[in-house]
Amino acid sequence: MTTSFGIAIHGGAGTILRSAMTDALQSQYTNALEAALSAGHAILMAGGSSLDAVEAVVVSLEDFPLFNAGKGSVLNHEGKYEMDAAIMCGKSLAAGAIGAVSSVKNPVVLARRVMDKSEHVLLFGAGAEQFATEQGVTLVDQEYFYTEGRFSQWQEALKLHKVMLDHSDKKFGTVGAVALDIHGNLAAATSTGGMTNKRYGRVGDSPVIGAGTYADNKTCAISCTGHGEYFLRAVVAHDVSCLMEYKGLSLQDACDLVVNDKLVKLGGEGGLIAIDTLGNIALPFNSEGMYRGSRSGIDPAVVRIYKD
Amino acid sequence: MTTSFGIAIHGGAGTILRSAMTDALQSQYTNALEAALSAGHAILMAGGSSLDAVEAVVVSLEDFPLFNAGKGSVLNHEGKYEMDAAIMCGKSLAAGAIGAVSSVKNPVVLARRVMDKSEHVLLFGAGAEQFATEQGVTLVDQEYFYTEGRFSQWQEALKLHKVMLDHSDKKFGTVGAVALDIHGNLAAATSTGGMTNKRYGRVGDSPVIGAGTYADNKTCAISCTGHGEYFLRAVVAHDVSCLMEYKGLSLQDACDLVVNDKLVKLGGEGGLIAIDTLGNIALPFNSEGMYRGSRSGIDPAVVRIYKD
Repeated sequence: MTTSFGIAIHGGAGTILRSAMTDALQSQYTNALEAALSAGHAILMAGGSSLDAVEAVVVSLEDFPLFNAGKGSVLNHEGKYEMDAAIMCGKSLAAGAIGAVSSVKNPVVLARRVMDKSEHVLLFGAGAEQFATEQGVTLVDQEYFYTEGRFSQWQEALKLHKVMLDHSDKKFGTVGAVALDIHGNLAAATSTGGMTNKRYGRVGDSPVIGAGTYADNKTCAISCTGHGEYFLRAVVAHDVSCLMEYKGLSLQDACDLVVNDKLVKLGGEGGLIAIDTLGNIALPFNSEGMYRGSRSGIDPAVVRIYKD
Repeated sequence: MTTSFGIAIHGGAGTILRSAMTDALQSQYTNALEAALSAGHAILMAGGSSLDAVEAVVVSLEDFPLFNAGKGSVLNHEGKYEMDAAIMCGKSLAAGAIGAVSSVKNPVVLARRVMDKSEHVLLFGAGAEQFATEQGVTLVDQEYFYTEGRFSQWQEALKLHKVMLDHSDKKFGTVGAVALDIHGNLAAATSTGGMTNKRYGRVGDSPVIGAGTYADNKTCAISCTGHGEYFLRAVVAHDVSCLMEYKGLSLQDACDLVVNDKLVKLGGEGGLIAIDTLGNIALPFNSEGMYRGSRSGIDPAVVRIYKD
């Protein structure tokens, strides 16, 4: 079925194992996904832009402390926060991205400013933070990002000398959103705290246009979540778009081929969310689960965590 | 014609205007391109790998002070050097890239180490330099990169409050190489000092896999040079590869479509070098010129600067 507008969101591929998930915890995740979905959906319902919708969703997910983005981000090897984010407009192919920022409350807001207010696409580190200051984007102390769970994970990762994922049982900590608005415009946004105990300066696919984030009104909007290095090498988001544009594949077929065939062969675990110009939505993942939600037009919202 | 091996190199799209070019200067550029080409070609002739060949070419171009990469890099707004580089293997899709390093003599060597010796693809800034130290990659003082010409350009750019290109008359400072070896493997590498007076932390397309650098044994190897922001948004290198793989276009047709049609419509000036699995070479650019050279098998080397 196609609809005039729609939205899909994710809070990362790979999830807490069912055996370790409690009802109370599952409710917290579900509520957070529903709240974020609803924030974006309200904007689309009111005739707002897909860009505004995906930004609002990602802000909401960044503010939720159990997802690895914004508040609740994981710690790198040095015990610091280094966050990445990107946003892209399918109409103009305009894009903004930032990497390795440590004091920006909502990294996706800064990515949007890079797109709207700078002549650049990609800003990193202290340079990105300087731009944030000039733009009046909200900065916070490191304590803002602190959560006890992440601190324990980091301590454990340090002890094991391992770069670890979001949960100890394999979770790729990323949040993202894709949307189609009533004006026919697509947009995508992604935000992440990266990997626990990651090397200082490591950047994954999230802020890389074409890899973790992509939108083109000719095809689709995509936000990825997974083992970033593989998504970078496979240029995942752009590959889905090219399979649609050049090979004529449907959104679902293109997503399945990339996530469940090409990425699997390369060894890359994860998933993505996608929406096309007709409002079709695909939420493929090759991991145990993916925190995800979607809503097509005025249909009811659907929120899921595991495969079912 | 197809050959069993081949190599193509560039020293940036856009060149000094013919009116400002002297015979002596032109000889210097031509000699530098010939020397770099020859370094890569010798490796291929001896049965070496395309990865070793592109790395050797880029090292040679980085060491030449008139190209904007390694020694001779431009200065950013703060009067510092911030260099980016990437390398990719078409056989395994392994890739390594580094951004915003300021003390690494040959950034492409560090990119190769990221690919070969780390579990990551993309490392930035101080984290990348720390990895360089661990790997014993040659570090140098800032004075090593200093050239009088770049210093004057920076002073001029500061005065004009402008982000400037390599030459005052529009030159995109990047160097790169692509190669096919006798084992049938493709590789690509790119290195740059970025844009004069660029914002601290700005990153262009060069170190972004899929945008400025890409290689896949199924299709081609690509290294780009141009206004990086447009190349990032258009995911240029991967787009050429997808047009070949999914739409069946020849290397030349795919390159022409991306460089002379899609990029032009988006407003993106520049060019790229490309080689496919049969040894076909394409060197398209939509700018005034592109410092470039190529050699197919044992055919004579060809080195050019302007359109002719």
